[in-house]
Amino acid sequence: MKRTLNISEFKWLLEAGCVLLVTSGTSDRPNIMTCSWQTPIVSDGTCLVLLSIGTSHFTRELIREIPEIVINVPNVELIDAVQHVGSVSGRTVDKFKENHLAPAPARIVKPPVIAECVAHLECRVQRSIPMGEQDLIVCEVVQVEAEAEVFKGAWVPERAQTLHHLGKGQYGVLERSLRVSPRKE
Amino acid sequence: MKRTLNISEFKWLLEAGCVLLVTSGTSDRPNIMTCSWQTPIVSDGTCLVLLSIGTSHFTRELIREIPEIVINVPNVELIDAVQHVGSVSGRTVDKFKENHLAPAPARIVKPPVIAECVAHLECRVQRSIPMGEQDLIVCEVVQVEAEAEVFKGAWVPERAQTLHHLGKGQYGVLERSLRVSPRKE
Repeated sequence: MKRTLNISEFKWLLEAGCVLLVTSGTSDRPNIMTCSWQTPIVSDGTCLVLLSIGTSHFTRELIREIPEIVINVPNVELIDAVQHVGSVSGRTVDKFKENHLAPAPARIVKPPVIAECVAHLECRVQRSIPMGEQDLIVCEVVQVEAEAEVFKGAWVPERAQTLHHLGKGQYGVLERSLRVSPRKE
Repeated sequence: MKRTLNISEFKWLLEAGCVLLVTSGTSDRPNIMTCSWQTPIVSDGTCLVLLSIGTSHFTRELIREIPEIVINVPNVELIDAVQHVGSVSGRTVDKFKENHLAPAPARIVKPPVIAECVAHLECRVQRSIPMGEQDLIVCEVVQVEAEAEVFKGAWVPERAQTLHHLGKGQYGVLERSLRVSPRKE
């Protein structure tokens, strides 16, 4: 069961660096891209996500038309879909259909959420910073939801099992955590 | 034993989103900061790292004086040092000394490497993008080294055991990997 989080909790969904599935467009014509070139940023109390997206990508084109995205967090069960989504273009392939993923309406933004993912961050594009063949897309987070069982103020890695891209079709699965005790002076 | 990598391999050291220890300054007065707000970016063949650093941080001040850094990758053995480095300011504490870390000369840049880390990326600051109380620091990677046993073209997570910040003194340890087979059409 997914629950709505405080927006300020968004950074704990992203800071550990997992692979993301970013949806763009509309429910009639949605697209999905994988993204590992991402970081949360909190500045002056605003909750931001920075994504680096190739200027030639279909998602970049869709964001120019509708400057909204959903950042969906897949876990290990979606590893095959993640790899497929990252290896084909949405210009020619319906990635929802090909991967048997269910688009569901987001709360605030136009692009759909991917129902099978364990968390969703709805975002509005705030700014785009050109960097050669990449654009840095800075988004403001406007709505956050996560599965209550796998995120309790922080990921429960043993249950969340997020994916971390190692390259060449290989992914790390984060499933162990350690807590550090404050140091005694 | 550490070996020098092709610079283009740098992205596989960072893309999985591990916590970084960033050194700045000089061997006489070095500082260390933790950083999880990072992403690799490759654009027009240039190997870049983007870090988000608070404008008031001591590291930001040092980078203004000497626009070079070393990005060091700690593993699980350094978890206590990582937590300590992230909880005090280098203005008042010698973080190398307090954490029994050994500064060693870098190959190209002025800040020292942290000998105990499993990989080092030497970088020159190329550009700074203001974003309120954060600055986006875009660096070009000029030299890369990693332990041969834990990085073989990609992390070997079972041996590398990188740390991923979950929040509130808790870290994920990446130590399992899966390979996805190409899909048959």
